[in-house]
Amino acid sequence: MNQYYEQLLPYLERNHAYQAALALFSWDSETLAPLSAAEQTATYVGILSEEAYHVLTCDEIQHLLKKLSSPKEQDSLTVSEKAVVRLLVKEYEKLSCIPAKEYREFSELCAAAHPIYCRAKQCGTFEDFAPTLEKLIDYTRRFASYRAKKGEDLYNILLNDYEEGFTTDVLDDFFTKVRDALVPLIKKVTAKNDTINKDYNTGYYPPEIQSGFCRFLAGYLGFDFNKGVIAESEHPFTTSLHNHDVRITNHFYDDNLESAMFSLIHETGHALYEMGVEDAISGTPAGSSMSMGMHESQSRFYENMIGRSKEFWEPLFPKLKDTYPDELAHVSLDDFIAGINKAEPGPIRTEADELTYPLHILIRYELEKEIFAGNCKVSDLPDLWAKKYEEYLGITPKDASEGVLQDIHWAMGNFGYFPSYAIGSAIAAQLYDYLTGRMPLSDYLKEGNLVPIREYLRDHIHKYGAVYPTNELLKQVTGEDFNPDYYIRYLTDKYTKLYHL
Amino acid sequence: MNQYYEQLLPYLERNHAYQAALALFSWDSETLAPLSAAEQTATYVGILSEEAYHVLTCDEIQHLLKKLSSPKEQDSLTVSEKAVVRLLVKEYEKLSCIPAKEYREFSELCAAAHPIYCRAKQCGTFEDFAPTLEKLIDYTRRFASYRAKKGEDLYNILLNDYEEGFTTDVLDDFFTKVRDALVPLIKKVTAKNDTINKDYNTGYYPPEIQSGFCRFLAGYLGFDFNKGVIAESEHPFTTSLHNHDVRITNHFYDDNLESAMFSLIHETGHALYEMGVEDAISGTPAGSSMSMGMHESQSRFYENMIGRSKEFWEPLFPKLKDTYPDELAHVSLDDFIAGINKAEPGPIRTEADELTYPLHILIRYELEKEIFAGNCKVSDLPDLWAKKYEEYLGITPKDASEGVLQDIHWAMGNFGYFPSYAIGSAIAAQLYDYLTGRMPLSDYLKEGNLVPIREYLRDHIHKYGAVYPTNELLKQVTGEDFNPDYYIRYLTDKYTKLYHL
Repeated sequence: MNQYYEQLLPYLERNHAYQAALALFSWDSETLAPLSAAEQTATYVGILSEEAYHVLTCDEIQHLLKKLSSPKEQDSLTVSEKAVVRLLVKEYEKLSCIPAKEYREFSELCAAAHPIYCRAKQCGTFEDFAPTLEKLIDYTRRFASYRAKKGEDLYNILLNDYEEGFTTDVLDDFFTKVRDALVPLIKKVTAKNDTINKDYNTGYYPPEIQSGFCRFLAGYLGFDFNKGVIAESEHPFTTSLHNHDVRITNHFYDDNLESAMFSLIHETGHALYEMGVEDAISGTPAGSSMSMGMHESQSRFYENMIGRSKEFWEPLFPKLKDTYPDELAHVSLDDFIAGINKAEPGPIRTEADELTYPLHILIRYELEKEIFAGNCKVSDLPDLWAKKYEEYLGITPKDASEGVLQDIHWAMGNFGYFPSYAIGSAIAAQLYDYLTGRMPLSDYLKEGNLVPIREYLRDHIHKYGAVYPTNELLKQVTGEDFNPDYYIRYLTDKYTKLYHL
Repeated sequence: MNQYYEQLLPYLERNHAYQAALALFSWDSETLAPLSAAEQTATYVGILSEEAYHVLTCDEIQHLLKKLSSPKEQDSLTVSEKAVVRLLVKEYEKLSCIPAKEYREFSELCAAAHPIYCRAKQCGTFEDFAPTLEKLIDYTRRFASYRAKKGEDLYNILLNDYEEGFTTDVLDDFFTKVRDALVPLIKKVTAKNDTINKDYNTGYYPPEIQSGFCRFLAGYLGFDFNKGVIAESEHPFTTSLHNHDVRITNHFYDDNLESAMFSLIHETGHALYEMGVEDAISGTPAGSSMSMGMHESQSRFYENMIGRSKEFWEPLFPKLKDTYPDELAHVSLDDFIAGINKAEPGPIRTEADELTYPLHILIRYELEKEIFAGNCKVSDLPDLWAKKYEEYLGITPKDASEGVLQDIHWAMGNFGYFPSYAIGSAIAAQLYDYLTGRMPLSDYLKEGNLVPIREYLRDHIHKYGAVYPTNELLKQVTGEDFNPDYYIRYLTDKYTKLYHL
């Protein structure tokens, strides 16, 4: 092993311990911690974040990264080691221009924002959260400006943290295509919405029965319960301490069959990525800094391309009917498949169907651009939000809980994150097109044989973690760059067929 | 505020964040973490422990503690600040003579020992755990020898970590009294054991019903669910990150009514102590380093003096019968009270009744003394264990799970801890005697009014956390030093009456 790389290892190890502790505090806060603990937890998070900051920005790291970036030393590094160095340099450049004190303050603010956000959302009162949101935006803008080269767009800097290479130029093109193709398609679909009946979805579905079925589904998809756990939280999410400790959450509504089931499939898609990371890179930045778009491609692939297909449900539907014999007594497989794919504009992103989903993202993208261009004040957000929802989806949120407060991301200080959801959906469609040409996907699903699909994804995507940037990995797998045409075509074909347009 | 004390605060804060992270990892491992995560968790624990070690032993801390220990500076400190300094000096002296590398190795070993211990216990194979136990003992002996003054007994050093002032001299006296009084009493009780029937205890008690009743009981006793949570684990325990984040666990057996119920009452006693610590000292050593004996006195007080009294159950028994109408149909309150107090020698400490319990501790105390005097090899432990159980309790464990492997303490590197369980029981009896003279305890219990009892304990014990050493606090409350005669008298009177001896 390269001597400088070897000297780097204790720093990686310490950073990993801090990141794991932070992930555990975050998981714990969302799933179990007593309400009253939040304030003190924010202090812990601030302290541990600052310690991690010091590890990642210390002089020794700077010295080692400089050495390891030289062509001479690069030659002696493995592909994974190069990726670790690349990702550490990126992180070093991001962090080292932020003063430690500000970094800690921001970390504390993010942790402290959580209960404030939750209360405001519960009451639907945007003004209770607005001052905190303003602070979060101020810090984010200031941190981005520390890093900005002359004339560089601040929002592009944020986007780059979640998805390398997907600048506003790329995203403007992408979202224009999405808007131009989907807004008229949604109008046509909405006009024929009566043709699909999904009343079955709002029967009585006891949470403990849902929980059991979801646990079965997770195992069916390949979730390894020796390396992971499932818990409950207000909103479903996935977190990972390392490849042998991957955690997903779910939320059960007793009057909704689909919500928890598709959340589970979605989060399992994320979990399979995390569990599939090779041992050799797990715990290093190359095993944990996967791009958000690539991550979302895996969850969307499982949720939509696999989980909403008729083939997937063919072997499973009898079991589902057995689980809810009364509610599903008169529902056929075809009814069910039409129902789970029904598209209907609604106010909430996380409950959106596959077709309207990207427009929720488009709206957030446009708003974030405005915020960081300085064209939009925090107090303007609820009105702007309502205007765009009306324009793109014909929807008016009834209050802030249904509108600008619905998502937790900004409260976590995550700006520039949302676009990766749409990128992920588009990558999922591109991968799906490629995979259907590589293997008898439909037959596997009909046979209830998920293994070849999961193994293929593991061998070609999961095991590499964050070793390759999204576009490079995508090209490596499919032979092609990111191409949103697959996504547009997939949605157009699917919904044209489903609604006999 | 004293300037040196002020300079100490950031170190206290950092140490607190590390201790909280370590507590959270430990809680998580016991309650939820996937099995396969254990190895990596041990590494995190090693790293975070080493970081905490560095905070507590750095030159600045040494300098500040030296200043703050001088009579001049002591004069300007509050009582709590003095306690913080005293406890930090104790910790500094304990840690600073251990090399950092060895400290981390030991922390990792303790975390790694957990799954090894669990597997060995499950299989009942002591030899699978023996090599790990040997390492744990070696480290503990080595660390104690680093701290030993010339001629100082190593076991006394360990005892002092859990309970200041309770040396082997004090404990030899204490346990001699216990043995002399209780061994003959147990023989008499055992001879009349047929007179109490507790068949009701082994009916069918669905865990979810037990869980609901236990949750009710916790609230009844004063557990604040805004500041605490209850989860499940193999063995019940309490942990606390700070006074607003206190966690207890329980374990439900569907064929045992009492086990979970009395575990819950016991752990709630611990939790009330932790929740009652004043905000001003929470998170400092004065709010978290309570002596194990004083802690156990609170749990035992609630479990035995309160929880096994007829007065406590008078208002609750109808609810208990409603909860389990079939199983308890023909059980009267008097039957139930006799049943929950029935004494019967058995192999397992945690399932022992109030009367035989201290003999389980006596056995562990004698073995630990032998181990650290160098008179006993690890491989001898199972036989010695069996011999002592036969001698004191007339019991032969059927295998190591029921014998030397039953308790997790040694696997956690906790040697010298066990005696505090018996000390705690004795303090509980002393407090009980005092309290019955201070307030109409029986009437409060009959009225279902737990508040005055809890408030008294909070005002006189809980709020002080670890500000005063056990004996000082006890004298402050009761006007008397530790006096085991109360305990002997309490048990003798209670069991003489219960069995009509």
